[in-house]
This record gives sequence, structure tokens and C-alpha cells, in this order.
Amino acid sequence: MPELRKDPVLGRWVIISTERGRRPSDFKPEERSSTGGFCPLCEGNEDKTPPEVLAFRNNGTPPNTQGWSLRVVPNKFPALRIEGDLNREGDGVYDKMTGIGAHEVVIETPLHHETLATLPLEAVENVLRAYRERIVDLRRDRRFQYVLVFKNHGQAAGASLEHSHSQIIALPIVPKRVKEEIEGAKNYFNYKDRCVFCDIISQELNQRKRIIAENSGFVSVAPFASNFPFESWVLPKTYHPNFGFMEPFA
Amino acid sequence: MPELRKDPVLGRWVIISTERGRRPSDFKPEERSSTGGFCPLCEGNEDKTPPEVLAFRNNGTPPNTQGWSLRVVPNKFPALRIEGDLNREGDGVYDKMTGIGAHEVVIETPLHHETLATLPLEAVENVLRAYRERIVDLRRDRRFQYVLVFKNHGQAAGASLEHSHSQIIALPIVPKRVKEEIEGAKNYFNYKDRCVFCDIISQELNQRKRIIAENSGFVSVAPFASNFPFESWVLPKTYHPNFGFMEPFA
Repeated sequence: MPELRKDPVLGRWVIISTERGRRPSDFKPEERSSTGGFCPLCEGNEDKTPPEVLAFRNNGTPPNTQGWSLRVVPNKFPALRIEGDLNREGDGVYDKMTGIGAHEVVIETPLHHETLATLPLEAVENVLRAYRERIVDLRRDRRFQYVLVFKNHGQAAGASLEHSHSQIIALPIVPKRVKEEIEGAKNYFNYKDRCVFCDIISQELNQRKRIIAENSGFVSVAPFASNFPFESWVLPKTYHPNFGFMEPFA
Repeated sequence: MPELRKDPVLGRWVIISTERGRRPSDFKPEERSSTGGFCPLCEGNEDKTPPEVLAFRNNGTPPNTQGWSLRVVPNKFPALRIEGDLNREGDGVYDKMTGIGAHEVVIETPLHHETLATLPLEAVENVLRAYRERIVDLRRDRRFQYVLVFKNHGQAAGASLEHSHSQIIALPIVPKRVKEEIEGAKNYFNYKDRCVFCDIISQELNQRKRIIAENSGFVSVAPFASNFPFESWVLPKTYHPNFGFMEPFA
């Protein structure tokens, strides 16, 4: 059973999940190319994943069979377990809780060699739509405090399977980094009576020095204080506190 | 000129240093072995580095010649510049300051193929002694708020040169992570009237579940809430607020 442990100095929660060391990998150590073996995420191998929790399918095809353009399935080697109660416990100076949460895999395409960059536009839209639908659904579980969507592209980024996919994790805590973002935005608002993200968007649109792309709904910028090369932010131009509340944008 | 930029939401300072992209590398992309070319850190190549700021040398050998067991030199491709004044400036919602600081390289051995793990004990002691001497010296510069020592071992960790070395950076700000550690320790002390690190040491010595090594002066533990595999902490058993103030331990 995975466990959440709190750093007694920093107050940050860490997932301790020993089982995940046993998950399969497409990538051999010391080698950067794929092994080209069996892929559980490919069309036709639906019985090799846990049953789907969401899928976009051709009309009439039954769940967990061929005929899908996108599937969301529970991760077979989850960092956190969906079953069980959230128990909190102390051990002297240390605090821990049971590793309750959801860990899902968004299989973005039935085809092994496609990537987000090569998919047609409507397939990319479906990926974003799947994120939103799963976030809205997972928010209903009262044990969860935060839903995180992430994508590791390639072995160097930590991906263990080559087939294009992203991951969704629902957590029983709010990550420290997110708390700090909320806190920072609150402090800014308390001082200025303005939203910090609205101020950033307005300055970037004005200066036009760091804009990567823009349309009527969104602007993408290279942040002023980037943490890594090619970091980019996508910001909605109209005020939106939560991705799960957004309507599809035409 | 490098620049420090503040993330307007998180309040974290980031070093923006475009010049460092031009530094040399022993490692070609797509290749994990060394290129075996010329090494500026090897004995005999003292004129290929900036003049040493500290060295442990055989009696009578002049600075910047052969005959040393350890040298500390300024980094030829520094992330921060030592020359200049610390200027702070705003640009609308953004804050920045000049990238003033020190960036030094500790060349741990004259021999190219030695590592910290293969060096004799007294050479390792000298590395720690060099860290302390440089920290004490850099603290005298009133522009600096924090001195950071780090070591990247191997290409995967970010090392660009194979020859065993570590780096010292003096910063005009206290990193957010360190501020949070100080803040966390303060909060704990305010609530418990006890030092959180003393409590951790006492519980670990009692439980003996996570101790890696121990002698009369220090204890090394695998932290309760590790952030990465094989993370380990080395803690002095007697209360010490600053590594720079420590006396050599016999």
C-alpha cells in the first residue's frame, strides 16, 4: 500500500510507493531506442489494461473493444490506490496518511507511433476534453483535494512506455507548490486588489516581448522567470479559476 | 550580464544566464562515455583556468603551477558575475536584479580518473575543508546572502566535465527552498520550544530504522519523506547552525 509522508521541516507531502519499481518499461537502461515489443496501449490490446473509465468511440462499439480514438484507464501500477479510507497517523515527529488517490492513463491515440505533435487537431481537442471530463468526475470524490494532469514525452522525461499517453493523478492533499501559487496570488490580490495573472497577461500583451502564440481565447507566453529552457504558459484571456469549469472554445 | 528574475506568483528568484550555453562539454549528445579530449582541470593545465583562490599545495610550489592536491578557481563560465553593484529594478509586474554572485569550481584531485569514492580519506577531508574555507571567505562579501555547495556526478546529473569537481555559488538572495526550511524550523520551534533537527536525530537514533552510518560526531539517515531514491542526510549530533562555523572533527 502506498503511503503519503510529510517532511517535518518543509511541510511537504511525498508519495512513497515501492510497488511502482516493478512496472514494465519500453526502454532498456543504457539505450535510447524502443525495444519494439508488445504494447498494452495499442488498439486490439484492450484486455491488457484495466477497464476504461472514459473512451471516445465509434458509434456502437462496446467498451473495452476496438474502435476508439481515445481511452482513459486506471494505471495498472498506480502511485496511489483508489480503494480504502484516508487514515492519518503520527509517529513521533513524523506524520503520514494512507496513499489514497486515483492514477489514470489517457491513451491519446490507438496508433503506436503517433504523438501529440502529429495528431490531427480534433484528436488534440479530444485529449483536452478528456482531461476536463476526468477532472470534473474526480472532483466529486470527497477524499481528493487536487487533480494533477501531466505528460512525460520520451524516456529522458521519465516515460516508461513509448505509446503517446498522459497521466492524471488525484491527490488527498494540495501539493505545496500549488498552495504556494495560491498563496502568492492571494498576497498579490490583498496588496493590489488585482489578479496577478490578469496583470501578467495585460503586461505581456502590451510589451509583446515574450508571446509565443495568441488567439481570441488564449495567449501563450515564455514566462519572465522561466525555470527551464522552453518553459511556456498557456493562459486564458478571460478570467477562469479552474480548468474543469471551462467550456469548449470555438 | 546574467540577471536574477523574480517569479511574480511564487516569489522565487531565478538565475537567467544565457552565456552558460557556450561552456565546453566532455559529453556529446546521444553518447554517455567521455570524449577523452583535453581536460582544463588536470594537473599541468593550471594556466587554462582562472587563477586559484585557494589551493592545498606541496611546500614551496608557487600558485597556479603543478604540485597541488586540491584547487579552487573561479568558474570560467559563471552563472553569476563577481564584478559590479547589486542593482534592483522593476518592470511593471516584474522584479529583477543584476546577477551578482560568485561561482567557483573545487577541483578535488589532480588526477582525471579519480572520484570522491576512490580518493584517500585525507583528500576527502580536504574537499570538506575547502568548502568551509570558501564559505567563511565568501560570507565576508556583504552583497551575498547565501552560499550553496553542490556536486554533479556524471552527465545524467548535469556535469559537463568528467574530472571530479564540485561547485560553490554565492547568491545575493536566500533561495526560496532554504527560506522555507528556516521558516519550517522556526514554526516548529515556536510550537514545541524544541529544534526540529534535534528531534529528528533523537527519534532516528532511538528507532534505528533509517540510519545509514553513525560515528561520535555525525549521523547519516535516509529521510522519512525522501524526495528521490538514495537521498541521504548527514547531521551533526551536536547543535551546529552553520557549516562554516564547524571545527574539524577528530
